[in-house]
Amino acid sequence: MSPMNVQKLVSLNLNVRGMSQSATLAIKDRCRALRAAGKEVFDFGLGQSPFPVPEPVVAGLREAAAQKDYLPVKGLPALREAVASFHQRNDGVEAHPELLLVGPGSKELMFIVQLVYYGEIILPTPCWVSYLPQARIIGRRISMIHTTYETQWKLTAERLQESLSRVNDDRRPRLLILNYPSNPTGVSYTQDELKALAEVLRRYEVIVLSDEIYGQLHFRGQHASIARYYPEGTIISSGLSKWCGAGGWRLGTFSFPPDLDWLCHAMASVASETFTTVSAPIQHAAVHAFSGGPAIQSYLHKARRVLEALADYSVRTLRRAGIAVHQPDGAFYLFPDFSPLTDRLAARGITDGRSLCSDLLERAGVAALPGAAFGRPRNCLAARLAFVDFDGAEALRAMHDVADSQPLSESLLRTVCPQVMDGMDAVADWAAS
Amino acid sequence: MSPMNVQKLVSLNLNVRGMSQSATLAIKDRCRALRAAGKEVFDFGLGQSPFPVPEPVVAGLREAAAQKDYLPVKGLPALREAVASFHQRNDGVEAHPELLLVGPGSKELMFIVQLVYYGEIILPTPCWVSYLPQARIIGRRISMIHTTYETQWKLTAERLQESLSRVNDDRRPRLLILNYPSNPTGVSYTQDELKALAEVLRRYEVIVLSDEIYGQLHFRGQHASIARYYPEGTIISSGLSKWCGAGGWRLGTFSFPPDLDWLCHAMASVASETFTTVSAPIQHAAVHAFSGGPAIQSYLHKARRVLEALADYSVRTLRRAGIAVHQPDGAFYLFPDFSPLTDRLAARGITDGRSLCSDLLERAGVAALPGAAFGRPRNCLAARLAFVDFDGAEALRAMHDVADSQPLSESLLRTVCPQVMDGMDAVADWAAS
Repeated sequence: MSPMNVQKLVSLNLNVRGMSQSATLAIKDRCRALRAAGKEVFDFGLGQSPFPVPEPVVAGLREAAAQKDYLPVKGLPALREAVASFHQRNDGVEAHPELLLVGPGSKELMFIVQLVYYGEIILPTPCWVSYLPQARIIGRRISMIHTTYETQWKLTAERLQESLSRVNDDRRPRLLILNYPSNPTGVSYTQDELKALAEVLRRYEVIVLSDEIYGQLHFRGQHASIARYYPEGTIISSGLSKWCGAGGWRLGTFSFPPDLDWLCHAMASVASETFTTVSAPIQHAAVHAFSGGPAIQSYLHKARRVLEALADYSVRTLRRAGIAVHQPDGAFYLFPDFSPLTDRLAARGITDGRSLCSDLLERAGVAALPGAAFGRPRNCLAARLAFVDFDGAEALRAMHDVADSQPLSESLLRTVCPQVMDGMDAVADWAAS
Repeated sequence: MSPMNVQKLVSLNLNVRGMSQSATLAIKDRCRALRAAGKEVFDFGLGQSPFPVPEPVVAGLREAAAQKDYLPVKGLPALREAVASFHQRNDGVEAHPELLLVGPGSKELMFIVQLVYYGEIILPTPCWVSYLPQARIIGRRISMIHTTYETQWKLTAERLQESLSRVNDDRRPRLLILNYPSNPTGVSYTQDELKALAEVLRRYEVIVLSDEIYGQLHFRGQHASIARYYPEGTIISSGLSKWCGAGGWRLGTFSFPPDLDWLCHAMASVASETFTTVSAPIQHAAVHAFSGGPAIQSYLHKARRVLEALADYSVRTLRRAGIAVHQPDGAFYLFPDFSPLTDRLAARGITDGRSLCSDLLERAGVAALPGAAFGRPRNCLAARLAFVDFDGAEALRAMHDVADSQPLSESLLRTVCPQVMDGMDAVADWAAS
């Protein structure tokens, strides 16, 4: 008799039953298996920054290694000061240390905000892989707004207005999650677009969770936050994972406006009963990251130049092969749409995102994530390529000798990031075959 | 017009509305305020280990400072190996690296297990402050079993059997949370008691979440796990916070038996959509803690001797003042019951735990937490004293010169931990006044 068998059948939360690992983590395992079998794989699956954590930040962690005390739930005061200054300096928006929350990754904070807020979650698609599963675990009502290639996969004010007005409930509590530069597209919003969205959001009193985790990876350093145009209703989400290369450190931040203090405080209450506070040594080290300074500036400048050059090469290469793809503004993603090749692909038995990515991996050795992982319909023929398969430390070293006025040559790029270039070539060859 | 006002009134999850900071954190703030006002305060409120993180573990963090990759959701494989060996070595129970989960504090894992498991949560009281609020946030049905001073505040097999059999539903999915050595009492279960509990749990197929975070702080190093007697239904919870002095680092672990693999996997799925993985540098450092070795052994040996001596002094002092208190087996708590003094206290207007602790703080300068914070009725006159108000690093240094055969003298103790001794004296004086 195995006494636990009965419970196996009955006692899992229905919102969780049948859930699998998040799609990005699953592809990592598949790549590892193929490589172990001796196959060359271009790993464009997982969106992890290839760059190392900047040296002053690593030094900060070494210094703080003996810090052992529980820190305040909302975060180390010095860190909250630094994050507030960071938003003021970089995004030109007001931020208040007492209205900042530090969490073990912004993903955890996004989960808690959905748990605490009782309202509908609005997701424009394509969107990051975890928003939707989070809402499902909690059992929140989700409203998806599918965008199109024609609008650069961006939510337009018209589309938002149309969607919000459709239900007969103008005061409905709703929270829109807006992410820019976007994962999976790399595309960002212009200030005019943000202004137009802000107007609609204000009209319907919709809270916006503005996921700006890639803000500092805007290639031209021109990231703008919707908080400039809708300060009273915007929560800005940021963290160390992307621009600071510290995904594995797990530190994210939420910045609230005074009008949303109640949401900040309720989240802090739940935080005190869940993660409690973020690891003390990590918080002490993070002060060095958010405080900025010349070393961080130089790091960011180099990282952005490498990423922009890789994006340019990739877009050119894919377009030449007849693939539709938008020029990204930041981050390290492309979201090419293979639908111009629909007939040719159908002849090879490829009719949806899943078969597309599977064929791409098995025949071209390129790991990509299908559009369906980002909330798109299953037959969507767009897929995300994360062009991060290179040694970021080596790339930064190579940039030492490149003057600001000097363009990044393709040959340098091919020396430093051969996997990205070869991988994009492989996608193009695969498409043409 | 403040457009967000409407939402203030309607859009918080009812399970979260009105929640305040956890009681332990609130008392910390009150102590800080009193001290700032120049008052001497004996801080027996927050249960944070006074000892530093052992040096090999801190060195491990310095070494791992540049680790930046996202680690596997369940945890760094080397750490899971080390934790499995730790449980085999220290608790004499089987543990399986593939059935281990590493989380940002065991508190976070406890929240996720309650979220994932669809069943009733059984809490013997007094119990740790966060179990109950967690179940409430998630909306789980809670069944509390009040224990008594006479059974050392322990759950007896008879009481458990009576409670489980009361509902007409023997196959009801239920999860019992059992914590020993106990927070708030310091008392642990004997092996016979664990055996008897295990029999009842097996009869009703109840899962037990065995919170053994203080296991390594058993004064005599004789901690035994209920997993020895009920391996198929026991999840062991542990972590760095207490025995390793690293509460602020945020690392906890759950170890599952093969029969509960489904619960482990479901929790990992939710983890992948929430905290993702624990901070990489912290996990690398934690390997050094769980691997043990002479430096860790010596650290634990000294810490236990200091804590036992403080417990002995405290129990003697309180009992002399007519307060009922059990001799703790481990950890750094006492849960004295002031009800033998009921009449005298009532004459001073003290009729419940809240007025008791308030008077104790204002008149004796001793911070304590009322029984109600641990799930006891409001009129309960027991309170928790955490005897941690001393410099743990200094205490360990002083222990250098004390031979194992030599008892810890009261004068040494008073030199090293004056606040604890004076604080206990103050409680006794307050009770006698």
